[in-house]
Amino acid sequence: MAILQIGAGGVGWVVAHKAAQNNEVLGDITIASRTIAKCEKIIESIKGKNNLKDSTKKLEARSVDADDVDALVALIKEVKPDLVINAGPPWVNMAIMEACYQSKVSYLDTSVAVDLCSEGQQVPQAYDWQWGYREKFAEAGITGILGAGFDPGVVSIFAAYAVKHLFDEIDSIDVMDVNAGDHGKKFATNFDPETNMLEIQGDSFYWENEEWKQVPCHSRMLEFEFPNCGSHKVYSMAHDEVRSMKEFIPAKRIEFWMGFGDAYLNYFNCMRDIGLLSPDPLTLHDGTVVQPLHVLKALLPDPTSLAPGYTGLTCIGTWVQGKKDGKDRSVFIYNNADHEVAYEDVEHQAISYTTGVPAITAALQFFRGEWADKGVFNMEQLNPDPFLATMPEIGLDWHVQELEASQGLPVIQELKK
Amino acid sequence: MAILQIGAGGVGWVVAHKAAQNNEVLGDITIASRTIAKCEKIIESIKGKNNLKDSTKKLEARSVDADDVDALVALIKEVKPDLVINAGPPWVNMAIMEACYQSKVSYLDTSVAVDLCSEGQQVPQAYDWQWGYREKFAEAGITGILGAGFDPGVVSIFAAYAVKHLFDEIDSIDVMDVNAGDHGKKFATNFDPETNMLEIQGDSFYWENEEWKQVPCHSRMLEFEFPNCGSHKVYSMAHDEVRSMKEFIPAKRIEFWMGFGDAYLNYFNCMRDIGLLSPDPLTLHDGTVVQPLHVLKALLPDPTSLAPGYTGLTCIGTWVQGKKDGKDRSVFIYNNADHEVAYEDVEHQAISYTTGVPAITAALQFFRGEWADKGVFNMEQLNPDPFLATMPEIGLDWHVQELEASQGLPVIQELKK
Repeated sequence: MAILQIGAGGVGWVVAHKAAQNNEVLGDITIASRTIAKCEKIIESIKGKNNLKDSTKKLEARSVDADDVDALVALIKEVKPDLVINAGPPWVNMAIMEACYQSKVSYLDTSVAVDLCSEGQQVPQAYDWQWGYREKFAEAGITGILGAGFDPGVVSIFAAYAVKHLFDEIDSIDVMDVNAGDHGKKFATNFDPETNMLEIQGDSFYWENEEWKQVPCHSRMLEFEFPNCGSHKVYSMAHDEVRSMKEFIPAKRIEFWMGFGDAYLNYFNCMRDIGLLSPDPLTLHDGTVVQPLHVLKALLPDPTSLAPGYTGLTCIGTWVQGKKDGKDRSVFIYNNADHEVAYEDVEHQAISYTTGVPAITAALQFFRGEWADKGVFNMEQLNPDPFLATMPEIGLDWHVQELEASQGLPVIQELKK
Repeated sequence: MAILQIGAGGVGWVVAHKAAQNNEVLGDITIASRTIAKCEKIIESIKGKNNLKDSTKKLEARSVDADDVDALVALIKEVKPDLVINAGPPWVNMAIMEACYQSKVSYLDTSVAVDLCSEGQQVPQAYDWQWGYREKFAEAGITGILGAGFDPGVVSIFAAYAVKHLFDEIDSIDVMDVNAGDHGKKFATNFDPETNMLEIQGDSFYWENEEWKQVPCHSRMLEFEFPNCGSHKVYSMAHDEVRSMKEFIPAKRIEFWMGFGDAYLNYFNCMRDIGLLSPDPLTLHDGTVVQPLHVLKALLPDPTSLAPGYTGLTCIGTWVQGKKDGKDRSVFIYNNADHEVAYEDVEHQAISYTTGVPAITAALQFFRGEWADKGVFNMEQLNPDPFLATMPEIGLDWHVQELEASQGLPVIQELKK
């Protein structure tokens, strides 16, 4: 058995550690990235933490341009993996899927191949390109598993679990995501600042009463009591799984909510007001041309530098409301991840940890034959039970919290922009 | 008669208009700047507003590098001015003073030749370089008038007026500066963003009980009721005239205060926290090197673009507390300037207007022989009476407000940083 992992950023870091801890199933591991030094640094960390379970299996680094289909095909031919795990940025998904198709090797990723904030790439169009491979993958006899992170990913599994075990009828699905951790910086982003700031600026899309609703960022807010994290303000945001849940989970409203502290939003608004969040070229007085967003990226701390000393919990889950046995029911299915525990396990913070652990949990389902049908599948389409049985062993547990059902739907505040 | 004006920014704009309105005394006017187009634009505005009082006098543009003493001497030889008016940035003062000394032509400026926020150039050292020319100017038989704007400038004249006419003994001198106008932008600076942001970041210096006190920016605050502008929070800041008043005005405490709205300070703090106010080189991920402050300068509106549509008043004045005839006395001597009135008069806003009008008022004192002693003089050393009699005719009136004297010294809040 063997896997080929593409990408050596924060998510790649955790994916590699978790693959190494489970290499008695996954086999030989090859980590490939444009910059081989990043792969080598991960391998050094894995060995330093003694995370390579079966030391007779290979753990190697390769350099590859993940935009180059031919280079990917050549690498796949060399490595001969049973599964390619894409831990790269969203814009490499299509090249890697095409290379897998050409090589007849199965594929898994953790986020959708669009940026969700550019015209023609927003939530209603998300997955269109990747779903275009459904028949091709089926014909080639390979499996594609899409969006196997936490959100998207586990939250979709939670929704599928609710449909299968907890509800007869679903009114609303709200994906709730808060990072209640503290990295000790006045302002920093938990992943690539450019991707993060573009994502946050985009309009939100949610599905309600059989149609897409589009609203400006931070214009819909609600306050939610997160288990072990207290009450947080969360804001409606564009996110991959709203698109896939709309396809596979029957609900009147489906929406994604992310927590932003008042201080974070204040920085965000100031930066946006002065134009620092723009990707458009800016000419300085000396003629130099820069993208303001690239200047911000260079100013802010490298997200990977935040992990040591990061404290506190994240809470991500799926809040489902509907009916069971004729009665109203409200359930929050969630995980708490601890930044310090994540760092102790794999030398990274919980934001990357909560994406990397589900990816390897999903890979294990594939290797065990639980999730090995031919074609392209989103997480909502797959059997949640074996996945949820495995995930706690890989590093993330989960809980079902019954909420007061009588309150009805969430109290959503429409904010004036 | 003739004057040579160096500098064609916002202050230069107003100086040129006011010189033109008074050219029956000042004579031929030459405006010189590195970029001759800026001078020509000012001349166009002067002609468009019909502000050239005596149309038989010359009004011409020249190009000059104000850092180049030889080039300045050559220009002075060509133009043969009776007075050089320096309306350029602080860092050209020394070159222009040297050129005036070599050419034996009198000199006038509106701000000190240091940046007040770099080591060795802060308030206690301010004027050291320029005062080095006192004997040279006296020997050359020429006059140097320093800091002839509003603050520094008129506020120093107000202090000298208070010493001469209103007080027997002075406890405190507080220069109070608020811009209660509205330019309609979320965030913008009223003059060069680079100069402005460096100045605001610097430590404040004030003179108290025979010694300099140094405190971080925005750490000392008081609230003051400004005539016709309402109550505003003002913060202790480094400013030129604290140094010159300390030399010439006997007071126990001398301090400069500038009004900053909460929203302005919030932008300032956010930008500082993320590192955008730094003048130090920053390397972007593609290898481009930029100064963050230059990026901010390119992002923000050009200050000259704010003038049309700018509404509201500024209030700048000198708050003097002490004793007269054995009784406590508290007096605020001030001007209100109106952005719209300034624009109607000279097509610029009140921040530049309040600097340019005093410069020409001072130039008129020189030409009339009121302020024509040989040597280098700060405004506090000169007779305030003829200046204050002239200034309202040039565009800015002034008022003396008696305050309740029983309250004692200002209530200064020390803020935790």
